[in-house]
Amino acid sequence: MSLIVQKFGGSSVADPEKVRRVAGIIAETYRAGNDVVVVLSAQGKTTDRLIATAKEYNPRPSKREMDMLLSTGEQQSVALCAMMLESMGIPAISLTGWQVDFKTNSNYSNAAIKSVGQERIRRELDARRVVLVTGFQGINKYDDITTLGRGGSDTSAVAIAAALHADLCQIYTDVDGVYTADPNKVRGAKKLDEITFDEMLELASMGAKVLHNRSVEMAKRYNVDLEVLSSYEKKPGTKVRRISKVEQAEVSGVAKDVNVARITVIGMEDKPGIAFGIFSTLAKEKINVDIILQTLGHGGAQSITFTVARGDGERACEILEQHIDELGFSGLDMDTHVAKVSIVGAGMLTTSGIAAKMFDALASRKINIKMISTSEIKVSVLVDEDDADKAVQAVHDKFFGD
Amino acid sequence: MSLIVQKFGGSSVADPEKVRRVAGIIAETYRAGNDVVVVLSAQGKTTDRLIATAKEYNPRPSKREMDMLLSTGEQQSVALCAMMLESMGIPAISLTGWQVDFKTNSNYSNAAIKSVGQERIRRELDARRVVLVTGFQGINKYDDITTLGRGGSDTSAVAIAAALHADLCQIYTDVDGVYTADPNKVRGAKKLDEITFDEMLELASMGAKVLHNRSVEMAKRYNVDLEVLSSYEKKPGTKVRRISKVEQAEVSGVAKDVNVARITVIGMEDKPGIAFGIFSTLAKEKINVDIILQTLGHGGAQSITFTVARGDGERACEILEQHIDELGFSGLDMDTHVAKVSIVGAGMLTTSGIAAKMFDALASRKINIKMISTSEIKVSVLVDEDDADKAVQAVHDKFFGD
Repeated sequence: MSLIVQKFGGSSVADPEKVRRVAGIIAETYRAGNDVVVVLSAQGKTTDRLIATAKEYNPRPSKREMDMLLSTGEQQSVALCAMMLESMGIPAISLTGWQVDFKTNSNYSNAAIKSVGQERIRRELDARRVVLVTGFQGINKYDDITTLGRGGSDTSAVAIAAALHADLCQIYTDVDGVYTADPNKVRGAKKLDEITFDEMLELASMGAKVLHNRSVEMAKRYNVDLEVLSSYEKKPGTKVRRISKVEQAEVSGVAKDVNVARITVIGMEDKPGIAFGIFSTLAKEKINVDIILQTLGHGGAQSITFTVARGDGERACEILEQHIDELGFSGLDMDTHVAKVSIVGAGMLTTSGIAAKMFDALASRKINIKMISTSEIKVSVLVDEDDADKAVQAVHDKFFGD
Repeated sequence: MSLIVQKFGGSSVADPEKVRRVAGIIAETYRAGNDVVVVLSAQGKTTDRLIATAKEYNPRPSKREMDMLLSTGEQQSVALCAMMLESMGIPAISLTGWQVDFKTNSNYSNAAIKSVGQERIRRELDARRVVLVTGFQGINKYDDITTLGRGGSDTSAVAIAAALHADLCQIYTDVDGVYTADPNKVRGAKKLDEITFDEMLELASMGAKVLHNRSVEMAKRYNVDLEVLSSYEKKPGTKVRRISKVEQAEVSGVAKDVNVARITVIGMEDKPGIAFGIFSTLAKEKINVDIILQTLGHGGAQSITFTVARGDGERACEILEQHIDELGFSGLDMDTHVAKVSIVGAGMLTTSGIAAKMFDALASRKINIKMISTSEIKVSVLVDEDDADKAVQAVHDKFFGD
């Protein structure tokens, strides 16, 4: 008998038919003798609808009142799902954030979790009830309702699993697991049985939107075993763990990120601290810089090239232009027609030649590499956006091809 | 400066336009320097819609989960109204039942109020905020959400006014006060400036649906001054108080109740305890008996005539038939074509001849009186249903005619 936390997203509980399916999964887990805690998001587009309604009352509502309003969505979800379970003969009880003492800070609409009470949930589990808890919400020290921001229900589920020392936290979504690459775009993409937290974090930040990074970070910190699986198909998903139990693959996934702009600062004066000046100026404006390449250009003048999120590109250039004399450079060049292709794998730590293998795959398809960045478990290259899909396929074939 | 509790019903807050009007009333009260606590129902048909939704998930949902679901309606109301007030520059905060420590027993869906916390509301009032509290809901000793049943928001408002020792509890509705008779049906019906709790209770039980009786009973017990007034028209309403401040009118209202059936038990044996037997048998089945008339019939055989709610008539007869031998009577006769016409007035206590004046009015219109019942502040007569409207008008003309 295990204690299992199961989280279902808004699209999985959008209507009575879908809730019936979800209740079926819960009932099966419960009937197998497990203690089951269920975390639910608001149904379907409820949150979007409530936000739109709020705007009719106040174009700029306070975040405190917005959280008060939005939290009703999850409360309705858990109550209706409890009713469905009752109709199937499964004892169930729904609980809100305050009822399980789900404490957060006071950063309304994007609150950070501080602690989760065990007492009430344990008592209900001891009475052999399925416990349904509202995702996405908590209370602050003033007993006011807070919400965790978008994707917060995943994080709620992990926090509850951590507090209860659950054996497993299952995140049910509309995909059936984590793949070696986007299965809709890459031939031969395979579902992974297992992946480590760090790999998952790198893949997620690369745009693989299976799990919210915040939830994976929390799972890593509290060592909560995760499983990503489908609400629609009954088959095992992908386990996300501290250390993978199967033999570590050298590479676990290939990802593409087109949300990138490359900026080159040209004709920099040859004086110390200029790179620091550029990046601290951007940091003050909360613009994150990713890959950085510093080169010695023609005639001894230096240049620095770096990437930012594409949406930040224009603003980054404007800010640097404003400080052109003070920072000491002659011009800027921006290229938004680029993409980042990355391989991620915990196995890289112990295997050599992984990066070389990736470059070989790209070279054989005559794909030009504009920039390179490596970390312990990741190698990223910047390529022309037109080459990106071809690059992903080539790299994927190299590592996962038969 | 006063502390005023204002309650608005669901139809008064049904959409942004209506909430804007309500917020205007609140803002004006606040700007006049008063402390304002607002109690709101769920918007428009929200509660009905949630009940219908629940049935799609479970035809017989548990009351505990139903209350969890329904309570979201008022939570949305108070959050949206707080947003509207904020947009008008009025500092406001919305609070749920649990946030104001609104304690009830555990009778889900029809809970009784046990106590209301003052602390949180006082703190917010001290910060010069308008405090918006969810009507209709509370929490029990297990920290589970309960609801008070239909019409519970009026009672919530009175309970909060009592706990805070408010100077006035204003109940805003879609009528502008309490009338001497139904203004849609009786010529010359006048709005009352004031009425006593007892008169209001008698009128309400007669079908004048201005205030929920439960709220009037609570106001009477804790001596909370009430005012019934319109959300749509800016003018004084009707004050409901322990003792009326104006000179006590002998009669304050005339009401008609067609929800009546008259049952006659014929041929009763002349033995002691038979009347008791009949009424205790009905009481066991939770059938309330109203007017009772006992007569000595032909040849010494007795009969008893009484009235019950029309919907209980058939069942009352069936139950008595089942006990015909044991109770000792020969037959039953039921008449559902009757109506009760009543006059209510605290002034009756000190004025004689009121009943006679009523009978005179009816006699002059040749209306036959079938039964009579009197209490300290009420005289009721049973008439043929076809005569009822004419009877109300005749009695009203007699007491209120110019």
